[in-house]
Amino acid sequence: MKDDKQMYIPTYDDVVAAHERIAPHIHRTPVLTSSYFNELTGAELYFKCENFQKAGAFKVRGACNAVFGLDDETAKKGVATHSSGNHALSLSYAAGRRGIPCHVVMPRTAPQAKKDAVRGYGGIITECEPSTSSREAVFAEVQASTGAEFVHPYNDPRVIAGQGTCSRELNEQVPGLDAVIAPIGGGGMVSGTCLTLSNIAPGVKIYAAEPEQADDAYRSFKAGHIIADDAPDTVADGLKVPLKELTWHFVSNHVTDILTASEQEIIDAMKLTWQRMKIVMEASCAVPLATILKNKEVFAGKRVGVIITGGNVDLDKLPWIKS
Amino acid sequence: MKDDKQMYIPTYDDVVAAHERIAPHIHRTPVLTSSYFNELTGAELYFKCENFQKAGAFKVRGACNAVFGLDDETAKKGVATHSSGNHALSLSYAAGRRGIPCHVVMPRTAPQAKKDAVRGYGGIITECEPSTSSREAVFAEVQASTGAEFVHPYNDPRVIAGQGTCSRELNEQVPGLDAVIAPIGGGGMVSGTCLTLSNIAPGVKIYAAEPEQADDAYRSFKAGHIIADDAPDTVADGLKVPLKELTWHFVSNHVTDILTASEQEIIDAMKLTWQRMKIVMEASCAVPLATILKNKEVFAGKRVGVIITGGNVDLDKLPWIKS
Repeated sequence: MKDDKQMYIPTYDDVVAAHERIAPHIHRTPVLTSSYFNELTGAELYFKCENFQKAGAFKVRGACNAVFGLDDETAKKGVATHSSGNHALSLSYAAGRRGIPCHVVMPRTAPQAKKDAVRGYGGIITECEPSTSSREAVFAEVQASTGAEFVHPYNDPRVIAGQGTCSRELNEQVPGLDAVIAPIGGGGMVSGTCLTLSNIAPGVKIYAAEPEQADDAYRSFKAGHIIADDAPDTVADGLKVPLKELTWHFVSNHVTDILTASEQEIIDAMKLTWQRMKIVMEASCAVPLATILKNKEVFAGKRVGVIITGGNVDLDKLPWIKS
Repeated sequence: MKDDKQMYIPTYDDVVAAHERIAPHIHRTPVLTSSYFNELTGAELYFKCENFQKAGAFKVRGACNAVFGLDDETAKKGVATHSSGNHALSLSYAAGRRGIPCHVVMPRTAPQAKKDAVRGYGGIITECEPSTSSREAVFAEVQASTGAEFVHPYNDPRVIAGQGTCSRELNEQVPGLDAVIAPIGGGGMVSGTCLTLSNIAPGVKIYAAEPEQADDAYRSFKAGHIIADDAPDTVADGLKVPLKELTWHFVSNHVTDILTASEQEIIDAMKLTWQRMKIVMEASCAVPLATILKNKEVFAGKRVGVIITGGNVDLDKLPWIKS
């Protein structure tokens, strides 16, 4: 991706355009409520269920916006990324819908289930060694030989504008929210939320929720500059990546606070949500609820939107079951 | 419950009255679709999600109808049952909403989680030994000492009329269905479905789905009289109980066919539903999908309602994970 694009800061007009562009390819996901969790927290919680989204996660919003915004000439060469998570699935899905190739560079050691899922959505996998240098070298080769357009998982204005459509729906579905909370990894969803709500509902406070064991965004927020960790480890495996310049812009300007939760608190909140709300969601999505439960005074009496970001879980390895 | 009540065959007017009576206490549950499952089966499937219902299962419909239909004098003495499953939860929930006691006789060997769940909804547990004779003796004592009204889990016209509200909603939510399929144990949900659809949409074929390992309803259907097994064993633990006279009336008169699935087929369908639809549902709810997958020719090209009956799963013991 070129530098000039990377520096472009998307506007709310970009969100509106993205929403129109991606509407035929995504679900307008439902908002669920739970009287059990309302009693437990003392807040009114509105769960925006992106686990029911196409390809199983909100990432499909940004991926579709990037893919369907390409001119025909560029699109023909396809798109490429080196995520092995939901972004890879989503980009494969989006490219498949447009009928163009999607190249995904993944470590050869990635779980077979993840490779199968990417291929299931039509993605073309090129394997690399499990190191940053190998990944970058292989990715450069793939890009050079295919001319495919790089779509970064989050540090991309097209992706952030796409993610911003989620809180645009939420704001229509639940008017009068006091706050919205979303998990933060690289910051794509939080940035999209900031972009949208700062424009259409500037009174809504935006909170980000992060695992204590991968709290680089929390420390960045307190320090006032990006701190990137090398290889944080957490059960919330979607949240290991660091902020980048574009997401830092939104986080530093619009987020009210970043709250953190321990691994056990995340696992407990995840299991409790499955038990009481009967939805399958990733550990990452449980981080907001875990932080609400330990910071009840912040949210009590408030109408709070909670973004459930995705549902692509390895059902053979649930974190509360010892194998 | 008195014999004269047991012999009363509920009418569609009872379903309409039940719906009005229970509306403040239940969810109008959503209907979900899945393009993945539509492609896989060649049918248009509409999943009526009673796993999102209050107390986690459709049983709350019948329980609320029974509880809120009692006159004040009878209600004061409370209600009683000896189910240890979703009916016990649902009856406890319904009684709690009316502010009357709910007595539940459960074997002392029942899982602690089930006892906790019943108590969580306000049920009063009396333990018995894990035998039919002990259960009956203890239940008779409880009833004698409390005067509580017995609400049978399914062989009760009030309960069947309540369950009939589910397909009444489904028929409004998805007009023009060709068929509806539901799991069958004692036959309460299937009977309610027959009662409603035979009146308001008599062209809709009604199928019941049953585990091969607990196929007493299938064999009853083929034989033309009730066959009750002693202690069938299946992962679909909500479906172990036999038909009774009232449910046999509806099943024998209105069901088009009963289809069966093996344990492995049920587990596979259950896991696949969690994976692709991101919903937590019981093994029992997977039996209909399992039978659709092995009888594709019956459902191909049809609009089919599939009742997802409940979501009360022990998340520590999932049938595809060996512990």
